[in-house]
Amino acid sequence: MGLDSGATAFVLIATAMVMLMTPGVGLFYGGMVRKKNFISTIALAMIAFAVVSIQWVVIGYSLAFGSDIGGFIGNLDYVGLRGVGMDGDGIPDLLFMVFQLVFAGLTLAILTSAMAERVKISSFIIFGLLWTTLVYDPLAHWAWGGGWAHQLGALDFAGGTVVHISSGFGALAAALIIGKRIGFGSHSMEPHNIPMTLIGGALLWFGWFGFNAGSALAADGLAANAFVVTNISAAAGALAWMFAAWVQGKPSSLGMISGAIAGLVAITPAAGFVDPMSSIVIGLVAGLICYKAMLWRIKKSLDETLDAWAIHGVGGLWGALATGIFATAAIGGVDGLLYGNPAQLGIQAVDAFAAVIYAFVVTYVLAYVVHKTIGLRVTDEEEYVGLDISQHGEKIGG
Amino acid sequence: MGLDSGATAFVLIATAMVMLMTPGVGLFYGGMVRKKNFISTIALAMIAFAVVSIQWVVIGYSLAFGSDIGGFIGNLDYVGLRGVGMDGDGIPDLLFMVFQLVFAGLTLAILTSAMAERVKISSFIIFGLLWTTLVYDPLAHWAWGGGWAHQLGALDFAGGTVVHISSGFGALAAALIIGKRIGFGSHSMEPHNIPMTLIGGALLWFGWFGFNAGSALAADGLAANAFVVTNISAAAGALAWMFAAWVQGKPSSLGMISGAIAGLVAITPAAGFVDPMSSIVIGLVAGLICYKAMLWRIKKSLDETLDAWAIHGVGGLWGALATGIFATAAIGGVDGLLYGNPAQLGIQAVDAFAAVIYAFVVTYVLAYVVHKTIGLRVTDEEEYVGLDISQHGEKIGG
Amino acid sequence: MGLDSGATAFVLIATAMVMLMTPGVGLFYGGMVRKKNFISTIALAMIAFAVVSIQWVVIGYSLAFGSDIGGFIGNLDYVGLRGVGMDGDGIPDLLFMVFQLVFAGLTLAILTSAMAERVKISSFIIFGLLWTTLVYDPLAHWAWGGGWAHQLGALDFAGGTVVHISSGFGALAAALIIGKRIGFGSHSMEPHNIPMTLIGGALLWFGWFGFNAGSALAADGLAANAFVVTNISAAAGALAWMFAAWVQGKPSSLGMISGAIAGLVAITPAAGFVDPMSSIVIGLVAGLICYKAMLWRIKKSLDETLDAWAIHGVGGLWGALATGIFATAAIGGVDGLLYGNPAQLGIQAVDAFAAVIYAFVVTYVLAYVVHKTIGLRVTDEEEYVGLDISQHGEKIGG
Repeated sequence: MGLDSGATAFVLIATAMVMLMTPGVGLFYGGMVRKKNFISTIALAMIAFAVVSIQWVVIGYSLAFGSDIGGFIGNLDYVGLRGVGMDGDGIPDLLFMVFQLVFAGLTLAILTSAMAERVKISSFIIFGLLWTTLVYDPLAHWAWGGGWAHQLGALDFAGGTVVHISSGFGALAAALIIGKRIGFGSHSMEPHNIPMTLIGGALLWFGWFGFNAGSALAADGLAANAFVVTNISAAAGALAWMFAAWVQGKPSSLGMISGAIAGLVAITPAAGFVDPMSSIVIGLVAGLICYKAMLWRIKKSLDETLDAWAIHGVGGLWGALATGIFATAAIGGVDGLLYGNPAQLGIQAVDAFAAVIYAFVVTYVLAYVVHKTIGLRVTDEEEYVGLDISQHGEKIGG
Repeated sequence: MGLDSGATAFVLIATAMVMLMTPGVGLFYGGMVRKKNFISTIALAMIAFAVVSIQWVVIGYSLAFGSDIGGFIGNLDYVGLRGVGMDGDGIPDLLFMVFQLVFAGLTLAILTSAMAERVKISSFIIFGLLWTTLVYDPLAHWAWGGGWAHQLGALDFAGGTVVHISSGFGALAAALIIGKRIGFGSHSMEPHNIPMTLIGGALLWFGWFGFNAGSALAADGLAANAFVVTNISAAAGALAWMFAAWVQGKPSSLGMISGAIAGLVAITPAAGFVDPMSSIVIGLVAGLICYKAMLWRIKKSLDETLDAWAIHGVGGLWGALATGIFATAAIGGVDGLLYGNPAQLGIQAVDAFAAVIYAFVVTYVLAYVVHKTIGLRVTDEEEYVGLDISQHGEKIGG
Repeated sequence: MGLDSGATAFVLIATAMVMLMTPGVGLFYGGMVRKKNFISTIALAMIAFAVVSIQWVVIGYSLAFGSDIGGFIGNLDYVGLRGVGMDGDGIPDLLFMVFQLVFAGLTLAILTSAMAERVKISSFIIFGLLWTTLVYDPLAHWAWGGGWAHQLGALDFAGGTVVHISSGFGALAAALIIGKRIGFGSHSMEPHNIPMTLIGGALLWFGWFGFNAGSALAADGLAANAFVVTNISAAAGALAWMFAAWVQGKPSSLGMISGAIAGLVAITPAAGFVDPMSSIVIGLVAGLICYKAMLWRIKKSLDETLDAWAIHGVGGLWGALATGIFATAAIGGVDGLLYGNPAQLGIQAVDAFAAVIYAFVVTYVLAYVVHKTIGLRVTDEEEYVGLDISQHGEKIGG
């Protein structure tokens, strides 16, 4: 079939909305760091996006979506966007390419959680280029480019494994390599500007409609379903985390917005497969287990600073499994456990744990190599004065 | 007819834009409160949205859009979104449902104006659930779900009565019950961060295009007309309020953005019925009378803190009447007073004043009951330290 | 042909996205000024938008798009939007009108760069009304309304000359008339809130997808190409400026975001004519030459305060020429120098330099007249206390 102008209109705007999620992550994270690292935290997200934007059109898109090589990676047919044109099936090929680009850029931005307030900007750029090439591109190929997970029948509507498990478990590995911030556990490191985190989170919620509903690649009933379950899961996650925190003290706004993100993460792989009532459960559980994961992370004194692991990693894992539980053929053509098809849950588990292991191990090795060669981390003095001044020569105020 | 992919694309994105209005309201309001309540003001808007998101899919949508019961309320056919699917007429039923959801969530967020800086979060959640069920859902049914106002021929394109009169006059009632902030009238309570209010207002202006043009439920000439008159009325309102304030002193940016919101409110019911030149008048008058309403509110020492009444209530009332004056059959098929049909103005007046009375009375009773049982308001000490710390255990800085 | 609902959906949303660029400019600029002028800088952008919104529907649209008079200006056929209706060719005429409106409003907002921190608000409004009528409207007519540049075959896809050369070289002229800020060159005038500049820049990047891709006026492959090259050029510009600055010191985030804007400006006229690989070059060069232009501006002690000239003026000039170099018939039907058609580069040069001269000279005269009659500038004392207090009676904090 040729182009559909409604589908094209929808995916064009959805792509812009997903692009906005990157500064959204920057603001969400930026509000949580100390003031001396506010600028650098936002800048890091945007630099990640710029670097991946170039990598993707030069090589990344081809690695992810080129003809399959052994189920693992795409070939080089699309290097430099050769053969990626203005025609297409429903939407232009170039549009599909850039819709995927904004996902790739965002994923690296999420990963900055692990290195916040201590990463050397030059090393991050090199690490990021390697990471997106060696971790993100293969995972995208597995799920969406015709790789083994796709062949196996694994379901990942909008990136539970590709985006969230990869960045979440990657963040855990990177945090172990780069090490804790100076004073972590002994000094207070309260968020310096929670309103910015709330607004950043709101931009994420907004952009996520493009992320999940846009993944239908059409303006149809499936997109509408994805939109609806996305909002429900976000709301349920927000309330679940908030009430869980309330039981133990006060309902922090940070918990509320973190729960919303947890709900958004968890519904991501499921959005085209589950119905609205299931999404309430998916969101509620996401809010609860991501909150528990965060508490565990703090208790273990792990400085995975901005909780990409607890929210994106654990939430993405739950979402991948939940897709195998709640999927119904009435929505996306595939049944899950609750609809009499337990095998799907098994497939989801294989896919999810493979992604967990691959993302963790490769990120660990990559971070290790970069750390031991050029050094991932700034000096203690640079960390003390903050990255805004030490890395960018800038500061707030003046 | 089946689905139209252009219409579906448009309403999908419009829905996301309206969702963004809720944090927009949070930021708009948050900039106007004192710093100690900044976090809680944004959080309150987002919690309102989360709570209504769940209420709406469980019961609210059915109450508003279920088969009519006596002109007053919908039945329970759509409880739990039973029978609300991916098919539809022009756009998917699920999409229509979620487009309505984001309106309902926003309306409760607007209402927080009345309780800013002093409401107890637990009581607000309970009050909000009751309010959206007992005030919003019936009003939505009256206008759009086949209720008596619809049967009478009242025109409300995008929610002048349903969203703005309801939240504005509801806010007035709630403010009377909850009482003034400690020190109101004797201590300075200047806005602490006007740039945030301007940005919040800009997000509202942006989202309002989705709100009004999206209400065409199609990507057509009517949507374009709604878009155009929305922008004109906003601009005219901004300039009118600014110049009116200028005459008496300086052109505050707060007046400019408040005037824009007044213009946006007033054009809301009219957007699908009036032409561009009429919208200049509607916006100018909105800017002037909402400004006067605010001055009156201050003179009367009413602590309807963030002027939902003056802007949304009075602006919505003016807009409902203006629709009856300026409507032209050339745009939306119905003539108003200026086009030889004075009866329409009468119908608009009946509809608007019924909404005023219903919203005010029911909100007053509801707020009274909640206030006398679990208490709407925090303790004096909690109010003194601010809601950020007392309700959420959070603060800016650190 | 009649309306296409996909195209209409796309341009409706694109228009809203471009509208959001105006507060985006306000925030981008607002973060760079001193704190005492933060409110006024945002307000100035939004007031510019409101004023132009009214001017455009009353007279501006007709001057730009009315039937051609001598290649220079449109006639008065569309005054008051007479004859501009809900029907149209692909998209409704009213939608085309408002899509053009948001461009006009944004352009005046960009121009505020030249007068930041010292302009008198009343004079700015009068100056702005004259400027949009005498500079913007003719330039829009030349390129898009059937004027001489269009007749000559000049290519300007989304406003390289109309929006960026006009505002950039206009800003240079206005800065020469209004004069330097008190203390410029001797006192530190560091940006007071870089995170706001980054977020403002991110909103610009987001909105620019509507700006450039929306200029296809259809949801098709050409729009997709425009979207893709827009993102690539932004990323390349961001990296180019960042690395260029890095060579001489540190990679400031301000340089990164400025480079992104430079890349966005430069690709604007080219977006519907060049392919993705060319856009990498266009963006890289834009980042480098706009950076050099800024350094030259500082060295010359020119207080064109927020670098509209260096970024929009120089970037727009480069983009207009680059369109003549890199255009390929495979994308937009016209070849440029590299594809064997050197004449196109000549046409682009004529068009661009005519715009440079016209914008500079007319703005210079206009600013001079306003300055010598009612005075463009506040008093020294008002400048010292800041425009927030002196012009608006407002301040941050409290």
